[in-house]
Amino acid sequence: MKFIDRLRRAWAAQQSLLCVGLDPDPARFPRLLATSAHPIFEFGRAIVDATADLVCAFKPQIAYYAAARAEAELEMTIAHIRQHHPEIPVILDAKRGDIGSTAGMYAREAFERYHADAVTVNPYLGFDSLKPFLDFADKGVIVLCRTSNPGAREVQDLESGGRKLYQRIAEMAARDWNANANVLLVVGATYPQELRQIRAIVGDMPILVPGVGAQGGDVAAVLANGATTDGTGLIISSSRAVLYAGGGDDYAQAARAAALKLRDEINQCRKQS
Amino acid sequence: MKFIDRLRRAWAAQQSLLCVGLDPDPARFPRLLATSAHPIFEFGRAIVDATADLVCAFKPQIAYYAAARAEAELEMTIAHIRQHHPEIPVILDAKRGDIGSTAGMYAREAFERYHADAVTVNPYLGFDSLKPFLDFADKGVIVLCRTSNPGAREVQDLESGGRKLYQRIAEMAARDWNANANVLLVVGATYPQELRQIRAIVGDMPILVPGVGAQGGDVAAVLANGATTDGTGLIISSSRAVLYAGGGDDYAQAARAAALKLRDEINQCRKQS
Repeated sequence: MKFIDRLRRAWAAQQSLLCVGLDPDPARFPRLLATSAHPIFEFGRAIVDATADLVCAFKPQIAYYAAARAEAELEMTIAHIRQHHPEIPVILDAKRGDIGSTAGMYAREAFERYHADAVTVNPYLGFDSLKPFLDFADKGVIVLCRTSNPGAREVQDLESGGRKLYQRIAEMAARDWNANANVLLVVGATYPQELRQIRAIVGDMPILVPGVGAQGGDVAAVLANGATTDGTGLIISSSRAVLYAGGGDDYAQAARAAALKLRDEINQCRKQS
Repeated sequence: MKFIDRLRRAWAAQQSLLCVGLDPDPARFPRLLATSAHPIFEFGRAIVDATADLVCAFKPQIAYYAAARAEAELEMTIAHIRQHHPEIPVILDAKRGDIGSTAGMYAREAFERYHADAVTVNPYLGFDSLKPFLDFADKGVIVLCRTSNPGAREVQDLESGGRKLYQRIAEMAARDWNANANVLLVVGATYPQELRQIRAIVGDMPILVPGVGAQGGDVAAVLANGATTDGTGLIISSSRAVLYAGGGDDYAQAARAAALKLRDEINQCRKQS
């Protein structure tokens, strides 16, 4: 099944646009995990099992695993999701971007090694750097367009031919790169006006929206500016605000409560918009 | 010692601007390695030992290790270089780029886990995505500017305010991002005119130039357009044309011969320019 169909099915079955991002930072782990043989896996598994009925996707961030020398725990985490929650697609947040021959290796990393359903990529190197990912027609390729960080404007807002760079990227994504109907975009929740412009360019292409929670993005503004007419079209991702909602050994329950609150807030806004 | 000083020392002591890129592809390995317990490490070690007196840097490409589930062999390869060829800096080719908190994890991956002396990064997310790398003042941060692939022009050549995006990136790199004097740029050998423009913008900032060899870049044009007045300023990188110069069990000797030829060709052009 194509990624976009898996995603649509998850939106409907779960009645949720929420994605929980897995950014496991051992410095913030509860004491309970101090004696675990695989603390990064244990943490992720507990979060996944506590929130799986509330989300349309999980999004492990590979940098946290790589910094901790924990690629094996990332493999275990994704395998756990695929085995116990097979209806929930997995987005590997890796933001890869390289020339064609090397991009092919990164595509194998994401799709063959980690068995991710989708991966985030960087468009700075142009189409031929994306093609090895796009050639996996059943996988999702989620292209950075307008990111959630303050510095996003320095490069992504440069104007060219009356449009900003992020608008040009959105145009190329919709017009030139989507032959396999497997392109999505990343647009930060912290920039709702830009989200509105991008939605107008890309029709009903799904958009991954990080930046609610710890980064301060507003849920109502995201829905009002980014949702498609059927009230979907968005993968709204929260990582730290869910993962570290509780500081203690009740971290999984605290994460569930935070995820539930955010899912309901999103659904409330969907009814109103 | 700062990366740039290590690099200058290597340029002078080795009398070489050549960098050998380590893109280990098991599908292209000689039969000799079929029975090795660590074929990717063995391959890299043989190439390193056969070419270390000919180069100013080694550049392992992490995608090849990640696709093969061989992070441990990447660690072993870099540890081998540091132990046996400590005068040769190691550039981790990773092209990372993410928001600040995640970029910090990628910086730890490159500099604390792998002990690289420099890392390649992607500028699409702006300054705050680069700062966690730049804060390692003794490490080199090599920013993608104009890449060697055909698709580079689609995004990097977009015009803004009379200048192309890659020129804007070069300006920001030289003016805004280089407070620690640890920024370098990537400019592909396949675009010598762009290399000339960028050199004019960044003064004597070192430039990593991939794309000679398998990608077809011309050495004389690279030197004529990219060298600084003292005949240095460049890290000219070749990967596949060196690594796979020989198809058989003499691969290390064949790689040495190819590297020697390329180093001498570069030095010949340095005298003429």
